[in-house]
Amino acid sequence: MPIDTGQTMIYASNGRFFEDFSLGQTLVHATPRTVTQGDVALYLALYGDRRAVHCSAVFARSLGYPDMPVDDLLVFHLVFGKSVPDISLNAVANLGYAEGRFLAPVFVGDTIRSVSVIIGRKQNAKGGTGIVHLRTRGINQRDETVLDYARWVMVNKRDPAASAGPEAVPELAERVDPLTLGHAVPRFSAAAWDDAASGSPVRLDDYAIGARIDHPAGMTVEEAEHQLATRLYQNTAKVHFDARLQASSRFGKRLIYGGHVISLARALSFDGLANAFHIAGINGGRHVAPLFAGDTVYAASETLEKAELSGRPEIGLLRLRLIAAKNEPVPPGPVRGADGAYHHAIILDFDYWAVVPR
Amino acid sequence: MPIDTGQTMIYASNGRFFEDFSLGQTLVHATPRTVTQGDVALYLALYGDRRAVHCSAVFARSLGYPDMPVDDLLVFHLVFGKSVPDISLNAVANLGYAEGRFLAPVFVGDTIRSVSVIIGRKQNAKGGTGIVHLRTRGINQRDETVLDYARWVMVNKRDPAASAGPEAVPELAERVDPLTLGHAVPRFSAAAWDDAASGSPVRLDDYAIGARIDHPAGMTVEEAEHQLATRLYQNTAKVHFDARLQASSRFGKRLIYGGHVISLARALSFDGLANAFHIAGINGGRHVAPLFAGDTVYAASETLEKAELSGRPEIGLLRLRLIAAKNEPVPPGPVRGADGAYHHAIILDFDYWAVVPR
Amino acid sequence: MPIDTGQTMIYASNGRFFEDFSLGQTLVHATPRTVTQGDVALYLALYGDRRAVHCSAVFARSLGYPDMPVDDLLVFHLVFGKSVPDISLNAVANLGYAEGRFLAPVFVGDTIRSVSVIIGRKQNAKGGTGIVHLRTRGINQRDETVLDYARWVMVNKRDPAASAGPEAVPELAERVDPLTLGHAVPRFSAAAWDDAASGSPVRLDDYAIGARIDHPAGMTVEEAEHQLATRLYQNTAKVHFDARLQASSRFGKRLIYGGHVISLARALSFDGLANAFHIAGINGGRHVAPLFAGDTVYAASETLEKAELSGRPEIGLLRLRLIAAKNEPVPPGPVRGADGAYHHAIILDFDYWAVVPR
Repeated sequence: MPIDTGQTMIYASNGRFFEDFSLGQTLVHATPRTVTQGDVALYLALYGDRRAVHCSAVFARSLGYPDMPVDDLLVFHLVFGKSVPDISLNAVANLGYAEGRFLAPVFVGDTIRSVSVIIGRKQNAKGGTGIVHLRTRGINQRDETVLDYARWVMVNKRDPAASAGPEAVPELAERVDPLTLGHAVPRFSAAAWDDAASGSPVRLDDYAIGARIDHPAGMTVEEAEHQLATRLYQNTAKVHFDARLQASSRFGKRLIYGGHVISLARALSFDGLANAFHIAGINGGRHVAPLFAGDTVYAASETLEKAELSGRPEIGLLRLRLIAAKNEPVPPGPVRGADGAYHHAIILDFDYWAVVPR
Repeated sequence: MPIDTGQTMIYASNGRFFEDFSLGQTLVHATPRTVTQGDVALYLALYGDRRAVHCSAVFARSLGYPDMPVDDLLVFHLVFGKSVPDISLNAVANLGYAEGRFLAPVFVGDTIRSVSVIIGRKQNAKGGTGIVHLRTRGINQRDETVLDYARWVMVNKRDPAASAGPEAVPELAERVDPLTLGHAVPRFSAAAWDDAASGSPVRLDDYAIGARIDHPAGMTVEEAEHQLATRLYQNTAKVHFDARLQASSRFGKRLIYGGHVISLARALSFDGLANAFHIAGINGGRHVAPLFAGDTVYAASETLEKAELSGRPEIGLLRLRLIAAKNEPVPPGPVRGADGAYHHAIILDFDYWAVVPR
Repeated sequence: MPIDTGQTMIYASNGRFFEDFSLGQTLVHATPRTVTQGDVALYLALYGDRRAVHCSAVFARSLGYPDMPVDDLLVFHLVFGKSVPDISLNAVANLGYAEGRFLAPVFVGDTIRSVSVIIGRKQNAKGGTGIVHLRTRGINQRDETVLDYARWVMVNKRDPAASAGPEAVPELAERVDPLTLGHAVPRFSAAAWDDAASGSPVRLDDYAIGARIDHPAGMTVEEAEHQLATRLYQNTAKVHFDARLQASSRFGKRLIYGGHVISLARALSFDGLANAFHIAGINGGRHVAPLFAGDTVYAASETLEKAELSGRPEIGLLRLRLIAAKNEPVPPGPVRGADGAYHHAIILDFDYWAVVPR
């Protein structure tokens, strides 16, 4: 119902502030979304990924999928986008992700809705902001959870002098247990995987642990591109769209949605990780620095760990650290210095489990 | 057939001039268009609207639609776009709309064609231009009219000295009779409407008449965005696409299709009018000032009137005045001054009937 | 398998060099691609073509197609794009096309893969580069060839001092034999063709040979547009995407994919060639000069020749020379001067066979 302020009725929300979040609170986000062939084509046009499982119904069916599964990150963005009006319209920064699991494949025609639960809240020392932790689930039309992940955001207080309220910080796993992953991939025979179609003969066992893979291409981003993407995901954060408002921000310009960077880096990682066809889990992710239109994105990956999938001899998990840099290739050497600081060019540090055929 | 000028055959039309329009003339516009999932996704990516009925097949079916209906304004743009090569290639300005009615829903897979009848023509005092009035209908593959509206445009004469020809100016209703609207919405139970999914609990009876609703977000427009949109609608007016030609125009740059502004403002109006899910009628519309790439669009709505829909207890009509401004939020106070002049920031004044659940 | 260099494993290819191509070599390109409604809508939004056969299922079915066939040039770009990572990542220039034949229609839902055979290779006089000739086929999920064409590219040598290896230059036809064309068009009755829907009454017999058709519109190109297009085609050539890398190139900026120019010019040619609804064959094509974002493209066509299609009284072939220019309309007079040089504004010289109803 609208808020009657005596003088005027308020029909439109200006978003929640820190005081508006309570532990255990459930937020059912608006606008369930039926995924279409148009979403899939736009995603392709925006990032240019070439993994065959998302591009070819013939390839997908040869593995036992009923159709091409939708790119995992498109699912992530759709689920995330719905949470923005309820969670992060007044967010100062999206701080991190953890415990992400892709639990069921999504196909064109599926309808995805998004629900979040507040799992932590803590006022910052300075008092004008607080950290809100939440777990968001994407759910399909059969009430199956397709994606479950945690994130935490810094949110402004409406009234800096207000009481902090009950505080709690959840313990989030440093890495997703690989035993809980892989359910979104049908069983198939390793012989069914077509290296020529997928673009690479490099299978799981060919990767050395501790290797660094430089993805050779770079991609310059335009304002129209990230705005099209972010509207497609129905992510409404003003910082991405309102150049006039942003002119007086500390950056002086529109900020690109962090998820756009993840998708760009993941698409660039095709060259070197063509067969890492599915993101099964997100261990952690951090947007180290902002990206702006006109910047050029580069990517590199590090292989961190391998894991078996029980009863699945045809596939296994490869834990990858996907690093994105702007305006210069990802610098050689450690991602962070001895003092923990990132190289100035680095914008993304994203840790995930990929499924790779063996 | 090509025109044989003696020297050269003319295969391509340069568009009609004022002298080429006659009262009662029917123009069957080219290129019927099958609406696809791609059109729907592009429309989403271009404007970011979040009304659930257009985004979720589950939500749409819960109301009795067989599938998600296509956004009314996408239908409008497709029908309008087809008329441009025949009507407004040599138009000086698109002056206004009236008597618009959305008579049947459009779904992916439907094929829409467009037919116009000239209902008025009058030479302007200065003699070099004239006003042409027309009624355009969008018709689906079952010969059902899905949209019917009138507009009037100022068109150049080929020969300023030519005779004005027969003149007539149609009488157009100041507002669409609400009794003639609502047929594009299936009957449903008011209880079927899911406020959490739609994004707002504000129903028709919650709106006060004479209220002003400020839609909080702003959207900066890029050249690539409006060009993609206008090509998608197959609107061929050169002013939108040819920067070189426009460099010598009075604006010095490409002009954005006015319908792009309507769609942006309508999408921004989600915040405050989430449940105003269907445009049933267009009472009037005026493009007060041009929009250019780089400008930021803001929107506000005024509630003008409510109306019942006979035999439809679950829905009613809300008459809205949608105002768009550029480069500053819509200024408070009356849209037009005592002298009838608009505030300098205002670019659109659009009067329509929306269907809202009760 | 990755390449073990002793120190580091190389998982990502940096593309082939001249030495890596051998006569008769077959390259199965990665990422088969299922064409979707989204691809079709994006193609429309990118170029704005209005030929009814690609836009209306009703129109297409009236001619005997089971559904709207996909635009021939979209098929071309998809087939071409797949070959880039294997062929032209280190190309200096794409020199020409020949012997192109569109052999079967492509519909939404079809899955297209791409295979190339090396048919020629010859080192250039200076020794640092060579010309590679290849024939590329696009093949659908029923193993039918939908497109077959030859092209030749200039490719860098890895080692300028390396031996040239076996050399051969194929003989390619100057024009495709019209007797081998037209198979992608169903048989229909000439009376079935609806001129009002197609946008023009000009049929094959109305065109004079040697005529010049000026297409009246111009289109300014944005970075976001050509990048979206080229990623949609999964063409990975770095010159199109990496502004930072290109800043130090001889052009100083991103280069637009040549196929984007062909599609723009073909779409502009609707005005004058609305009924030239199908590209049956590509006789030759040359990218005379590069196109950059911000440039405005204009087009004109010359009618070169007509040909009958055996047993097909309802259609015939019109051989067209499609000329594109940038930043000024295509200049009048001959395309090339007495010395063979092109006018400075010309960027494309493309010779094709179009199918036109009689």
